[in-house]
Amino acid sequence: MDIANKVLLIILDGASDRPVNGKTPLQLANTPNLDKIASMGISGIMDTIAPGVRPGSDVAHLALLGYDPREMYTGRGPFEAAGAGIPVKKGGVAFRCNFATRRNNVIVDRRAGRIRETNELIKAIQEGVHLDVGFVFEKSAGHRAALVLRGDGLDPNVSDSDPKHDGEAVRSIRALKPEAERTARIINEFTKQVESILERHPLNVERVKAGKPPANTILMRGAGTVPDIKTFSEKYGLKGAVIAATALVIGIGRICGLNYIETKGATGGTDSNINSKVKNAIDALKKHDFVLLNIKGTDEASHDGDAEKKTGFISKIDEVLAPVVGLKDTLVVVTADHSTPVVVRDHSADPVPVMIAGPGVRADDVRAYDEISAATGGLNRIRGVDLMPILMDLINRTEKFGA
Amino acid sequence: MDIANKVLLIILDGASDRPVNGKTPLQLANTPNLDKIASMGISGIMDTIAPGVRPGSDVAHLALLGYDPREMYTGRGPFEAAGAGIPVKKGGVAFRCNFATRRNNVIVDRRAGRIRETNELIKAIQEGVHLDVGFVFEKSAGHRAALVLRGDGLDPNVSDSDPKHDGEAVRSIRALKPEAERTARIINEFTKQVESILERHPLNVERVKAGKPPANTILMRGAGTVPDIKTFSEKYGLKGAVIAATALVIGIGRICGLNYIETKGATGGTDSNINSKVKNAIDALKKHDFVLLNIKGTDEASHDGDAEKKTGFISKIDEVLAPVVGLKDTLVVVTADHSTPVVVRDHSADPVPVMIAGPGVRADDVRAYDEISAATGGLNRIRGVDLMPILMDLINRTEKFGA
Repeated sequence: MDIANKVLLIILDGASDRPVNGKTPLQLANTPNLDKIASMGISGIMDTIAPGVRPGSDVAHLALLGYDPREMYTGRGPFEAAGAGIPVKKGGVAFRCNFATRRNNVIVDRRAGRIRETNELIKAIQEGVHLDVGFVFEKSAGHRAALVLRGDGLDPNVSDSDPKHDGEAVRSIRALKPEAERTARIINEFTKQVESILERHPLNVERVKAGKPPANTILMRGAGTVPDIKTFSEKYGLKGAVIAATALVIGIGRICGLNYIETKGATGGTDSNINSKVKNAIDALKKHDFVLLNIKGTDEASHDGDAEKKTGFISKIDEVLAPVVGLKDTLVVVTADHSTPVVVRDHSADPVPVMIAGPGVRADDVRAYDEISAATGGLNRIRGVDLMPILMDLINRTEKFGA
Repeated sequence: MDIANKVLLIILDGASDRPVNGKTPLQLANTPNLDKIASMGISGIMDTIAPGVRPGSDVAHLALLGYDPREMYTGRGPFEAAGAGIPVKKGGVAFRCNFATRRNNVIVDRRAGRIRETNELIKAIQEGVHLDVGFVFEKSAGHRAALVLRGDGLDPNVSDSDPKHDGEAVRSIRALKPEAERTARIINEFTKQVESILERHPLNVERVKAGKPPANTILMRGAGTVPDIKTFSEKYGLKGAVIAATALVIGIGRICGLNYIETKGATGGTDSNINSKVKNAIDALKKHDFVLLNIKGTDEASHDGDAEKKTGFISKIDEVLAPVVGLKDTLVVVTADHSTPVVVRDHSADPVPVMIAGPGVRADDVRAYDEISAATGGLNRIRGVDLMPILMDLINRTEKFGA
């Protein structure tokens, strides 16, 4: 077929980097398949938000899906909540939550010993807490959970209670704008009731006996309003799916109306079952027009500052990507949501390499997938919110402006 | 160090050009040091404002410092005033002034014979003029001066009295918007009182006797409001300095909160003591995080239409830049504020070459600093207001958008 009708968007989370001793991990890794896609396609660099703007994973993914986060993003909470399986509704205010260990006025362990068995605690909170507004509280991965408040007059402009570092004092949530005062009051009341429930919960009594840190408080962060946006199918007329391991990306997909397709053994780390994720993605293309496949381990290795681990994992990704090379009737797009330079151990604003291969694409001279090669490619330098319109046009789904 | 923590921004004023007989002055000049920086770094082209917008030096420098002139620029006056040492305050309306020679209703010499000894005239005006609002009037370089009006209800939307060419009629200042009528009236009253003072001033009586054109009027232009902007340190958390010869660039630096560091023998021409300026810049980096070094002679030679002079001066600049090559822990950035093609003898909108060298930079294949080579570089094409965010990210000072 001369024109593709499907899109596989592969996001190698944080894979983009800076050179160390002259080379980036993408340059050092063994990537015959990625390089083949580069040879077949058109490459470029992309500021997922804008030049010099250091993106979080959340706003970057939204931009890559064509939603301008500067217009609709208020905080990470709703996406985590959706990822945790909470059926979020437009207008609710959502928070990311951590079970944590508090001793007097100090947070001694922000993760309560990375507690995993939180089902009973969550049930007790669901049943025991009573607020002036409706709420949903659900388990997320590990020690994490998500909370959504529902009702009139709620506002997401409140501070975090999470002090971000162990050994720091507990913070109560403050309104950052006058209209958020009620929300702050409700959240502080929630926390108070939760602490009273957790304090005397048998599971915590047992943990203390066993010398483990009790999950005796909950820390809140990332307050955000569930955005009122068009779904992916309303916006593009495409049926989309998301394949990812992290609650955040799953949640972004869900809020945008993508079907979440679970993969057994997908961990979000370098130990993830990425082979199955790729197989699932190819399979999903049979019933979907668009599949977002996020592979997260590259970002994890970067935050750890481990260049060797990152490089090795990129080589491993390349291996499992063999079946997507030359995928029929499909635009294969490979990019990253942001750079996470190993020396920075955090996201940076360096543009990410992006490449598009498939029918009709203006193949250029770029022969490798890396930050330096991509910068010489035919796409030049684009922005994250430009990507979906470009892909939509290549699959012949854009409407004409003018006549 | 893997990440730089300082920035040296070198602005070769108007150095960017168009090819004449196939080559630009930057291509023709002998520039081993600039080329070495290019080899070590990443290059690109930059529209200091936007494609096709022909920038003045003022708006270009503001954009390069990360202040969007389309949001805060109303006229050149306040920057000239600040450069002349007038302590400008937010909200005042400032003008650039020329001492000039008027005969009956015609301006016969816009520069009053390039008069330099204006101290006495200025003193007489300071003491003799009385207005409904406060004003400060101070000497600037040569025949120039600056005026700031201070008070309520002032507005910068007034025309220039400067006819721009000798032999043209004197123009009274007109309000360009109804709300500027009072300001126009005040400025015309100021001019009237000034002319009465200058007419009978002994210095002018002497000049006439000596056959020199008397400085018997003042021409006004560039009315602008002193902008209400965050200082450089408020905006970026950086301590910055400016090294420049022209009042305009010094004034821009001052209004943005940069420390002005004077250099003996800096003239703004091709005769300038640029060796000392570079030494001062390197020295200033010991006590500052950010240094803007402006070298103006390239622009002067361009306005003169002298390609040979421009090329020669670029070679001279290259020589004195030897010590900045590979400066430790520092991003060395070289660019121009705008193109000033020798054949145009004025600014043009052609993008300028920009390069960044230093720790973490994605070095590309560009091996020379010129307009044509830079266009193939890894930065691709950026805008002036993107530069500071990109540099801030490379020194790890950006805040994350999203999470």
